[in-house]
Amino acid sequence: MPSTYSRTDLYAEVQQFYARQMQLLDGGAFEAYAETFTEDGEFRHTPGREPARTRAGISAELHEFHKRFDDDPVQRRHWFGMMNLEPQDDDTIRATVYALVVTTRPGGKPAIAPSCVVYDVLVWEDGELFNRSRRVEHDQLFGSAAAAS
Amino acid sequence: MPSTYSRTDLYAEVQQFYARQMQLLDGGAFEAYAETFTEDGEFRHTPGREPARTRAGISAELHEFHKRFDDDPVQRRHWFGMMNLEPQDDDTIRATVYALVVTTRPGGKPAIAPSCVVYDVLVWEDGELFNRSRRVEHDQLFGSAAAAS
Amino acid sequence: MPSTYSRTDLYAEVQQFYARQMQLLDGGAFEAYAETFTEDGEFRHTPGREPARTRAGISAELHEFHKRFDDDPVQRRHWFGMMNLEPQDDDTIRATVYALVVTTRPGGKPAIAPSCVVYDVLVWEDGELFNRSRRVEHDQLFGSAAAAS
Repeated sequence: MPSTYSRTDLYAEVQQFYARQMQLLDGGAFEAYAETFTEDGEFRHTPGREPARTRAGISAELHEFHKRFDDDPVQRRHWFGMMNLEPQDDDTIRATVYALVVTTRPGGKPAIAPSCVVYDVLVWEDGELFNRSRRVEHDQLFGSAAAAS
Repeated sequence: MPSTYSRTDLYAEVQQFYARQMQLLDGGAFEAYAETFTEDGEFRHTPGREPARTRAGISAELHEFHKRFDDDPVQRRHWFGMMNLEPQDDDTIRATVYALVVTTRPGGKPAIAPSCVVYDVLVWEDGELFNRSRRVEHDQLFGSAAAAS
Repeated sequence: MPSTYSRTDLYAEVQQFYARQMQLLDGGAFEAYAETFTEDGEFRHTPGREPARTRAGISAELHEFHKRFDDDPVQRRHWFGMMNLEPQDDDTIRATVYALVVTTRPGGKPAIAPSCVVYDVLVWEDGELFNRSRRVEHDQLFGSAAAAS
């Protein structure tokens, strides 16, 4: 973290980072989204699925994943909130964040699908924030996983 | 922007501004909501509808629009989030913000209607923030507009 | 409030406080949640219900209230947003905040139940934020209460 940064600066900075990052994703700018990760970044958006690694890998994974929407004119909006930041001794930041995906189809009513918790490790590189890793857990799988364990 | 303001200050300031502004709207304080715009402010809340202009015009538009709720005891809550701020060279701020309108009727379950993106131009006047303009795009119209274009 | 704190610091600090506090609640850490209140804190989560008082009382109330979920593997997520902070002359902070409870059951779709407004009085003790009181109003009761009054 830049040495003049306070906890307050960090909080605002991460909010702005997430807003831009997820607007890129919702706008289909997958390469630009992948560039918000470090070069060796890791991204697991769906439990049980192998994480995507490196920017090229994350971008490829997103193109693959979004094929399901090719014939489905859905508008997805990723909302992050209730952002709990825990700066670590090694200058990384652990972020535990609630997320909702709000989906709307033409003429339809918005629905939430799904409700998630996002576990991020963020790092500073040359004064800019990046995701070193992101792991997303889905609430609708939580009960069954807990029941099975 | 006041010269001592940082990017962090701006982020907090705009969040506070939106919270107060939208609580005024949801509370039916249309004149007070209109006063959060500049005197020559412009407000287009519904695609395809002519924008309202000036504080008096915005207030009149809101009174007109809300007549539909006269016999409908709905409680609306405007949520703004994922706030992407881009300060401009002319000291205005472009804000691209997700919005949900959460509606509840007595005894009923809350519903989201609609999911939107808000495009604001904000300005400082005498150390206070105001909307110079606001344009709201609705997600459920997005696909059809895109399909039609 | 610590004397070097700005309005911006306060805004970030309260957001971080709420994120941690409500993640504790959603994770079932009721004692830890109760400790985010002052020793003589007051918490009324449901209209018409007697407020819980003191940390021990708040913790006991939460254990009692959550018995209804003993055989119901629901995951609840409390979202706070549109946070309107009004610092008072006595160094307390009035917070008027929108809240949604997003609930998900295994294999199910998330639902919002309910939509609320949270009225908090926050205080600083030894540089840390605490709830002196919290009162939650539910939107689905609003119309009927208004109609009945």
